[in-house]
Amino acid sequence: MRTTTLQIAILAWATAFFSVGPTLKGQESAAKYTIVIHGGAGGDPTAWSQEYQQQRRDGLTTALDLGVRLLSDKQAALDVVEQVVRSMEDNPTFNAGRGCVLNQQGHHELDASIMDGRNLNCGAVASVTKCKHPITLARLVMTETRHVLLMGAGADELGSIHQLEQAEADYFRTERQRLRWQKWLDKQQKSAGPVLGEGRVPYLGTVGCVVLDQHGNLAAGTSTGGLMGKRWGRVGDSPVIGAGNYADNGTCAVSGTGIGEEFIRRSVASDIAARMRYAGHELPTAAAATIATLPDNCGGIIAVDAQGNAVMEFNTPGMSRAFANSSGERSVLLGREDASAS
Amino acid sequence: MRTTTLQIAILAWATAFFSVGPTLKGQESAAKYTIVIHGGAGGDPTAWSQEYQQQRRDGLTTALDLGVRLLSDKQAALDVVEQVVRSMEDNPTFNAGRGCVLNQQGHHELDASIMDGRNLNCGAVASVTKCKHPITLARLVMTETRHVLLMGAGADELGSIHQLEQAEADYFRTERQRLRWQKWLDKQQKSAGPVLGEGRVPYLGTVGCVVLDQHGNLAAGTSTGGLMGKRWGRVGDSPVIGAGNYADNGTCAVSGTGIGEEFIRRSVASDIAARMRYAGHELPTAAAATIATLPDNCGGIIAVDAQGNAVMEFNTPGMSRAFANSSGERSVLLGREDASAS
Repeated sequence: MRTTTLQIAILAWATAFFSVGPTLKGQESAAKYTIVIHGGAGGDPTAWSQEYQQQRRDGLTTALDLGVRLLSDKQAALDVVEQVVRSMEDNPTFNAGRGCVLNQQGHHELDASIMDGRNLNCGAVASVTKCKHPITLARLVMTETRHVLLMGAGADELGSIHQLEQAEADYFRTERQRLRWQKWLDKQQKSAGPVLGEGRVPYLGTVGCVVLDQHGNLAAGTSTGGLMGKRWGRVGDSPVIGAGNYADNGTCAVSGTGIGEEFIRRSVASDIAARMRYAGHELPTAAAATIATLPDNCGGIIAVDAQGNAVMEFNTPGMSRAFANSSGERSVLLGREDASAS
Repeated sequence: MRTTTLQIAILAWATAFFSVGPTLKGQESAAKYTIVIHGGAGGDPTAWSQEYQQQRRDGLTTALDLGVRLLSDKQAALDVVEQVVRSMEDNPTFNAGRGCVLNQQGHHELDASIMDGRNLNCGAVASVTKCKHPITLARLVMTETRHVLLMGAGADELGSIHQLEQAEADYFRTERQRLRWQKWLDKQQKSAGPVLGEGRVPYLGTVGCVVLDQHGNLAAGTSTGGLMGKRWGRVGDSPVIGAGNYADNGTCAVSGTGIGEEFIRRSVASDIAARMRYAGHELPTAAAATIATLPDNCGGIIAVDAQGNAVMEFNTPGMSRAFANSSGERSVLLGREDASAS
């Protein structure tokens, strides 16, 4: 009933054998690639100004075009993921790197993680403040230490030793986010009592990228400023491998966005892979089943499998997202529009 | 071929109906319980002094006896896990709470997490220094905030607001660990160059507890001081839900110990549950298969399922561990002895 390990091994050997054949004959351009990105699943895009909607679409388009260019050029999945996430970290429209949301004290604290589908190598940072590109610092943790997750000043110190590009607080804290934070603070101060539970706060604009490259490898990256007005040293799912980020060539690459706590308790990203690995589900079925376990209006995920199948699944009013592949399919979307519409 | 949600619902209803029946007739003592604990999988117990071996056995016995007493008394799984882990945090023999290993600067930084199998509620803290019982602070995160993972000073602040018992540095840093740290430091200073990769350091004495209570509920808790000489704000698997700790009534409760990075990249704890949930494996098969994916000499796990089956699986020279259930079965073990021998 279930495929045995031996059957899988024979299939893998046969696939490798026959796919190497054509490559040796110089038909390299037959190799496929797929890229999917997201810019967060918070807020209702139909309530956004036309201008802000356009900023989001422009940011997604810039990142997607960069990814497609690198993938066409046969770049490695891990490099593409890093470069595409850096592009979104640089863009103040998204809640990652420059333009991130601010915590209770009006400060910035950034989380990121990256994972290599070839070997499960991964790196992550939580609550860093100095490195301009947290996704690059996460990659440094993966390649330059024996660790997976570093937090706070220690992680920043590693970035400084390796001379990663640093930035001052004013770089990260944009005027738009200062105003949003001030508005949030005024509201908090008018409400009775201390804000132990933090009330209902928007979870906006975490970014992520998943890729199948022309070499058949998967990778995933996620970067965020967390949630507006956060305190207590709260860490969400973005730097938690298996919750908000995961990649394994044998199954899929996943990046999540939403209420991180719900992603952590369900190991959302690795749960999608586990449904493929153990229940034999295809990626779309697996992803839909995992998202169906989340509370309503909780978040979403992007994913890609080793055949280049892409999934963009969410249970909120919208998820800023974009997709492209080597067959020329392409979409850039914000709300609940049909993925085939754009 | 696969059981449908409807079938499961009918089965759950029928089980609840028929199990409530006898209880109402006063046959409450028929309910089963199981407890499994560990005190870390590092080091080779055959190389330890008789005195240290006895300290380990005594610590495990004290914690196990406490757990058995509470479970016989029909206490809830979550309360039992918290109390048993507190007992091991108080015991300087284990690397958790008092007697934890020290980081590069000779300071203590504690991690812990707890999870409720009834509803996937969970809480975790990373790198806290003030709270005498990190497992209780982790439970506070679960019950008193909307978050799952809090780190550093913010987490300590939460404990202080809720008037959890605090302790000074001298309480955590025992003479034995100071001496071990000094020895480690001398060795580091003699070696050439900066210690970027941290070299080979012992991973000793993380503690954990998993329980099936008489009400049929599962819970898991894990607490640790991390690894000797750690730096960079490194966070291991103990506070990462799904990696070093997990509980779900539908599958199992798991607590891990070992090289945390390997546990994080494989989502070890939730992977065992996923093999049960999606591949239909029994707990022993699932746990053995997951441990088989780890590198040699990496660590181990304890686990219990809803039927009270217990597993203590490791791929190191030893794992300090103990087990007891309502049928009177019992063992307290350190090395590779057969579980039936003690």
